[in-house]
Amino acid sequence: MTAPVILVLDSDPPPRLGRLTGRAVVRHADERTLAARLPEADVLLVWDFTSDAVRAAWPGDGPRPRWVHTASAGVDRLLCPELAASPTVVTNARGVFERPIAEYVAGLVLAFAKDLPRTLDLQRQHRWSHRETRGLAGTRAVVVGAGPVGREIMRLLNALGVRVALVGRTARRTIHGVEDLDRLAASADWVIAAAPLTEATRGMFDARFFGLLQPSAHFVNVGRGLLAVEEDLVEALRRRWIAGAALDVFQEEPLDPSSPLWDVPGLLVSPHMSGDTAGWRDRLGEQFVAMYERWAAGEPLPHTVDLRRGYVPSTDIPD
Amino acid sequence: MTAPVILVLDSDPPPRLGRLTGRAVVRHADERTLAARLPEADVLLVWDFTSDAVRAAWPGDGPRPRWVHTASAGVDRLLCPELAASPTVVTNARGVFERPIAEYVAGLVLAFAKDLPRTLDLQRQHRWSHRETRGLAGTRAVVVGAGPVGREIMRLLNALGVRVALVGRTARRTIHGVEDLDRLAASADWVIAAAPLTEATRGMFDARFFGLLQPSAHFVNVGRGLLAVEEDLVEALRRRWIAGAALDVFQEEPLDPSSPLWDVPGLLVSPHMSGDTAGWRDRLGEQFVAMYERWAAGEPLPHTVDLRRGYVPSTDIPD
Repeated sequence: MTAPVILVLDSDPPPRLGRLTGRAVVRHADERTLAARLPEADVLLVWDFTSDAVRAAWPGDGPRPRWVHTASAGVDRLLCPELAASPTVVTNARGVFERPIAEYVAGLVLAFAKDLPRTLDLQRQHRWSHRETRGLAGTRAVVVGAGPVGREIMRLLNALGVRVALVGRTARRTIHGVEDLDRLAASADWVIAAAPLTEATRGMFDARFFGLLQPSAHFVNVGRGLLAVEEDLVEALRRRWIAGAALDVFQEEPLDPSSPLWDVPGLLVSPHMSGDTAGWRDRLGEQFVAMYERWAAGEPLPHTVDLRRGYVPSTDIPD
Repeated sequence: MTAPVILVLDSDPPPRLGRLTGRAVVRHADERTLAARLPEADVLLVWDFTSDAVRAAWPGDGPRPRWVHTASAGVDRLLCPELAASPTVVTNARGVFERPIAEYVAGLVLAFAKDLPRTLDLQRQHRWSHRETRGLAGTRAVVVGAGPVGREIMRLLNALGVRVALVGRTARRTIHGVEDLDRLAASADWVIAAAPLTEATRGMFDARFFGLLQPSAHFVNVGRGLLAVEEDLVEALRRRWIAGAALDVFQEEPLDPSSPLWDVPGLLVSPHMSGDTAGWRDRLGEQFVAMYERWAAGEPLPHTVDLRRGYVPSTDIPD
């Protein structure tokens, strides 16, 4: 019996897959060599989750991996009609990023509530300028995206005394359907975007949406850049429709040094790092190894992507 | 029957005491006129809690207020041997500042864990520089000061998954005595100073103490500036004994524009505002009015200061 071939779409540093020695043949590819090597692979590990190369390289009806795992929560950079139509199983990195992202969001919300960016500005100017800040307890947040990331954000903001409404695609139990979003957003202090990028969510945070918010509201995007229309957000900040925003994700990443976004007053820009706490790459590698062991034993894989919807459905997540 | 005289050591804006119309005569003083007006007052409201004037103006054995209330948590600026020896009751503003200060500390701790000051620096430079940040859950904090502020900080950090040790003057139930501080600090990620300023706590955070900490540790002072030896903290940061610090309180306030503290790498300077969320002055005024009503009715006052120890003992706080 030949050991299965794992093809790794690499990025630096590569995953530590030493535990699979003798149980799999590990090969490596980059964006350039991916198409040629895909047909020989049983498994594709998308370690470079910032790449769009899989979409371009996917072999259609030809020989192809039976399983694709991406070291990310979102699968939008991966999916294409050919992959969606194939019997290949796609899994994501559920479980690795939720808590770090929730902590990051809590940090941003507290930084806004406590006016921390301004404090740092004033410090640079040697200016002692006492201000009243906002109490966080009792404020209202709307978290858009009812998957595990959104739920963890809800849990952590709840723990800080924030009243959180969670908005998903469809209403179920404690989750609001998207039809409630406008009403909830209109009285929110914090709007957190943590939805998957799909045709239904692309550009959903636009001028119309920002126009609904309170002038004191803040918008935070830790989902995908294309959930928000960046130009509309900039305009909303310039016109003071909202008080501030933080983007950790962008329409194009990395953000070009010449982008006007860096300098928009009230906008906090960070380099897509909300989920990446020390040791995250090791955790992603360990997760893949554990999933590979299940796959090799013929067991069903956890958190498999619904290829039609474009995300892992949350029916298997306990509320 | 003559209405009691309330003398207000004023600051701008003054307290709203309209509810006491007809039930008290409200007079005002500033630092200059305080000594002359104190002997005629039944009650002194120290609204300008940044002032040391009471110490200088206290009339010794002469006629004096029977009750002094300060619109602050700390009473260190107020107490003097003459006041401590007098039968005058002193009360503080327990209940107003705890939650805001705890939120502020949580915001600082998350800002450090998520490297937010550096993110803002990089944004100004238009630099996309992905970094790994720290997971907050499972880190260890030592909160020094087991009064209501310290306890609220513990509660909120606990809610964020931080393991918190609370250190007070003496060990009791879930509180460590100060004899445990060195041992606890040596393995702490976060050391939070929230103790009252007394002879026992003055300068307790000094070179010896900072030398005990881990190089990855951060120090946060939201108590009183004189708890920490500022020069020693600066030296600890310069020598990288610790990774960072935040001071909201200082040996001298406001901090002079020429102070070297503004520019110390790794030090976050804020203008004594951790407890001051929107509406705080109204809450302080309402609290005084409610306490006045109890006092006028001859009822015992809550949170009275132990004049010998220099703070409100916490025996009446449920653990």
